[in-house]
Amino acid sequence: MSRIYLDWNATTPLRPEARAAMIQAMDISGNPSSVHSEGRAAKMAMERAREQVAAALGAEGADVIFTSGATEAAAMVLAGQGISCAPVEHSAIKAWCEQDLAVDADGIVTVPDPARASLQLANNETGVIQTLPEGLGSSDLTQAFGKIPFAFNWLGVTAGFVSAHKLGGPKGVGALVLKKGTDVAALIRGGGQEQGRRGGTENLIGILGFAAAATAAQRDLEAGLWDEVAARRDALEAQLLEAAPGAVIAGKNARRLPNTTCILTSGWKGETQVMQMDLAGLAISAGSACSSGKVRASGVLQSMGFGDQQAQSAIRISISPALGSDQLNQFAQAWQKAYSRWRDRNG
Amino acid sequence: MSRIYLDWNATTPLRPEARAAMIQAMDISGNPSSVHSEGRAAKMAMERAREQVAAALGAEGADVIFTSGATEAAAMVLAGQGISCAPVEHSAIKAWCEQDLAVDADGIVTVPDPARASLQLANNETGVIQTLPEGLGSSDLTQAFGKIPFAFNWLGVTAGFVSAHKLGGPKGVGALVLKKGTDVAALIRGGGQEQGRRGGTENLIGILGFAAAATAAQRDLEAGLWDEVAARRDALEAQLLEAAPGAVIAGKNARRLPNTTCILTSGWKGETQVMQMDLAGLAISAGSACSSGKVRASGVLQSMGFGDQQAQSAIRISISPALGSDQLNQFAQAWQKAYSRWRDRNG
Repeated sequence: MSRIYLDWNATTPLRPEARAAMIQAMDISGNPSSVHSEGRAAKMAMERAREQVAAALGAEGADVIFTSGATEAAAMVLAGQGISCAPVEHSAIKAWCEQDLAVDADGIVTVPDPARASLQLANNETGVIQTLPEGLGSSDLTQAFGKIPFAFNWLGVTAGFVSAHKLGGPKGVGALVLKKGTDVAALIRGGGQEQGRRGGTENLIGILGFAAAATAAQRDLEAGLWDEVAARRDALEAQLLEAAPGAVIAGKNARRLPNTTCILTSGWKGETQVMQMDLAGLAISAGSACSSGKVRASGVLQSMGFGDQQAQSAIRISISPALGSDQLNQFAQAWQKAYSRWRDRNG
Repeated sequence: MSRIYLDWNATTPLRPEARAAMIQAMDISGNPSSVHSEGRAAKMAMERAREQVAAALGAEGADVIFTSGATEAAAMVLAGQGISCAPVEHSAIKAWCEQDLAVDADGIVTVPDPARASLQLANNETGVIQTLPEGLGSSDLTQAFGKIPFAFNWLGVTAGFVSAHKLGGPKGVGALVLKKGTDVAALIRGGGQEQGRRGGTENLIGILGFAAAATAAQRDLEAGLWDEVAARRDALEAQLLEAAPGAVIAGKNARRLPNTTCILTSGWKGETQVMQMDLAGLAISAGSACSSGKVRASGVLQSMGFGDQQAQSAIRISISPALGSDQLNQFAQAWQKAYSRWRDRNG
């Protein structure tokens, strides 16, 4: 039996469009900073990619600065700034913030001073979507990009962070999106690339893969593929709750990403479930990939008011348009079987 | 006529070995931080790549931290440290240093306090090779890696910076090499990747390409390919000097990289030569790629005592094992023709 990958929020397989663009990019021999023909060809390809990413983000006219991912983009804007954020943010944001914003039981964050705050558009663990306040300083758009429609230029936010590998692009490339002309000091300095905001020869192959993936993701989104994902996800959740009536879906009352389910079955450790599912050929996670293997309960769930035992029971199922109902049924059945075994031992 | 690329020090075409490794890596769907099978497979591939890069660097047992390139690696070690360096360093190093170390006419740097200094192993513009003093704080190994034999573990340096794209790997990936256990604060923070020293999901495709390129580069070096390059470079220099007896090769009296020629023809602008050669199908540069298109004379050449007019006349020819004598002769003839035209107009 071939494996079933339900960990889309951790990373996605490379889209065929990204793969093709990257293989094509392998023939571009020049350095985008060189002035000869080879260099200019590399530069032109990169600038086309920048326009593609801006278009997919609804960020036409904004500054798109290519980085090694959303984590670097966040560091460029947040390091040393003492910005406010909530405990629901990804560790790449929390690393630089005061985690002093309040979170309610549905995962919704209150932002008293938007200009001095960072707020994610969608949560990686629960899928909960925030309504961004006007004038927000920055937003981690990583999980939202490609899964729900938004336009950077309409969000009212100064800076956005995105990663290619969450929408079918390669790992290790992303972007910082800035309202036109916003000042940001370079974190990585050198040859003056990216208008002096980010030194170092650019990851051209990755950038062209990112652009192709972003364009394809936007096309899928507009074609309604993620509406179908939401319908399948809702059906899956109904199956899981029927099998385990005491289980809870985190953020169930909030607007959520169409593909994400975070289910808590108090007392049954999430890590155990991940292992059992893995052995059954099913890839899920307990919390974010970055916190995998760590024993701490999720800060996201704790801030929503879940106790330790409940939070530690969380698993995240994050699906994609590539998964059909049959595969989701296979997961539901395997999980139900494991749940029954656990309940029989612990009931 | 197909173009001839003589700008190897700016960037190199992707090696077939790197291309193959990257295409293979495109099928690895997991996030190296995930605990399920897909994640563990990604992690294993990355750790194998780390061992390959360490072996190619002669850095077995040292810490190899993957970055987006040497520029990022340098920033991790040098930012905010007030280290000493010489004006011959790459801008990625100079961005963080006091440029107070003396350079002699051959380009050789004196280092009074090695522990508080950064010194490149080889220069990108002239190819001049330094003898690194024991106990040196850090060294930009980017241009030396793959072109001359060295072992990181024998250099007596605490930290080294390298980039994949200078030895046939992809642009936008590199490494920081550290003596085992050396403390470095993370510049990019988040999910605790790279033992907490560099957050963000890793550029897996790029890293696997880097490892394959480093291994192949090391193999070529051991097979003596660069000795042949040095012989062809020396023959080329003789031709150029015969054509233009007043020209000067920068760093001629020092040990140099086998592939690099920096030739100064006082009064004849380097930028003009680059354009003329480009139109003739020959890619060279005036100084480093990063400073391309800027009007300033090279700080490297000025620190060696060359005046503005001389420094502004510099071109860099950097060749590779891929170029045979025929192609170098084509360059020599084209350059000689352009030189004669310039001399006739200005003589």
